Amino acid sequence: MTFTSRTPRVVAARKLQRRRDREQSGRFLAEGPQAVREALAAGVVLELFATADAMSRHSNLDVHFTEVDDEALASLAETVQPQGLVAVCEQVDVPLAEALAKKPRLVAVVAEIRDPGNAGTVLRTADAAGAGTVIFAGDAVDPYNGKCVRASAGSLFHVDVVRTPIDVVTPLREAGLQVLATSGYGADDLDTLADDDVLARPTAWLFGSEAHGLPGELLEAADRQVRVPIYGGAESLNLAAAAAVCLYASARAQR
Amino acid sequence: MTFTSRTPRVVAARKLQRRRDREQSGRFLAEGPQAVREALAAGVVLELFATADAMSRHSNLDVHFTEVDDEALASLAETVQPQGLVAVCEQVDVPLAEALAKKPRLVAVVAEIRDPGNAGTVLRTADAAGAGTVIFAGDAVDPYNGKCVRASAGSLFHVDVVRTPIDVVTPLREAGLQVLATSGYGADDLDTLADDDVLARPTAWLFGSEAHGLPGELLEAADRQVRVPIYGGAESLNLAAAAAVCLYASARAQR
Repeated sequence: MTFTSRTPRVVAARKLQRRRDREQSGRFLAEGPQAVREALAAGVVLELFATADAMSRHSNLDVHFTEVDDEALASLAETVQPQGLVAVCEQVDVPLAEALAKKPRLVAVVAEIRDPGNAGTVLRTADAAGAGTVIFAGDAVDPYNGKCVRASAGSLFHVDVVRTPIDVVTPLREAGLQVLATSGYGADDLDTLADDDVLARPTAWLFGSEAHGLPGELLEAADRQVRVPIYGGAESLNLAAAAAVCLYASARAQR
Repeated sequence: MTFTSRTPRVVAARKLQRRRDREQSGRFLAEGPQAVREALAAGVVLELFATADAMSRHSNLDVHFTEVDDEALASLAETVQPQGLVAVCEQVDVPLAEALAKKPRLVAVVAEIRDPGNAGTVLRTADAAGAGTVIFAGDAVDPYNGKCVRASAGSLFHVDVVRTPIDVVTPLREAGLQVLATSGYGADDLDTLADDDVLARPTAWLFGSEAHGLPGELLEAADRQVRVPIYGGAESLNLAAAAAVCLYASARAQR
């Protein structure tokens, strides 16, 4: 039996495009083969909608498909080319205490970041740099927003995602992490900290939104305010680039 | 006199939203206060359209404003909040020989990159890392695409932008630059090159598109194929993050 865009289970799944429905249900949507494979590997797929075409292309996947027609699939997907697969997933975030109990040596915190593409890119970059914990602090974007899920390119399913109130510095420090806040006006220069071996210590990096930077309370609570050096004429780096430079500087120092 | 969206000069300027008209005229549009300030500083503004509101807010600018009504300004702008300013600018790119005659020590090459947001972000990151030359090689996005101009956050006006055919390796090497191609499968690891002081030499970095990577001919022509180490579960970094890590590794080594 092939479901259509009006079949109740498809209608219910489609509602997960809205934040409110994601929060009420604890579920979200992941689309396209890469995200679906990662979600299956993480064991969080509750239902996998697929077109007949996609079912035959992905017959190697050890999963029960719910067959939908092209229109139903398109109604579930947010991109033009979801390649026939959309999964309903359980949300994956874990409590802060659970993530910190693993004694991570590199943590990324995005504080009050509103842009889902930026948040997803930081998730991907953090994962690449070996930061196994990414914390969404304060009034941040929903990590299960479709754009964030896509920009994370599967990393949402690899790292420990944590959602916390904004006052996150104390528990991080109590977990043995130094807390470094990024700021264009920071007193400490990233290169100097690398030279002085400061970056080899277990570290949590705090990143703020591109428009507003970090909230003052986080800047003040952090152990240091760090600026990425600007060697040329640019005023600043964008968020994803700054996060990549900081997290990789730590990863290199911690090798 | 206030121009409307039907005034011929506004109509003519609006055509610059199309690549063909930009290429025929050698002009492009920059919108918003930051880009306009940088364009004025670079001396490339041919005409500055502004609403009456924006004219009074920016009366400190030493420039002749062409007053337009809100509708005309909105028709010239691609963003929802251009803050009342859109400038017609002369294109700023320079011939490769002219840029290389300055003996740059750090160069970024984007080869066949199609996404204007990515290209603009690399421009901004290159500028921040002190790479004074950014080369658009082969069938790349138009650097004067509105999205690229905006993502560059003014850096389009700071660096030497060059547009070349794809076979760019020989002239770079003849200018005394080692040529490092980024590749997820590169034989050389970025951290190892940094340890071995390879990155302290004058360097041109080649970056390919996120979907396809670098064309084979550039990978083969380069002195080395370099991979950014992946410490976690991510398959790869996105283009802007990889460029940030590589360019900043060079900037740090060249201090």
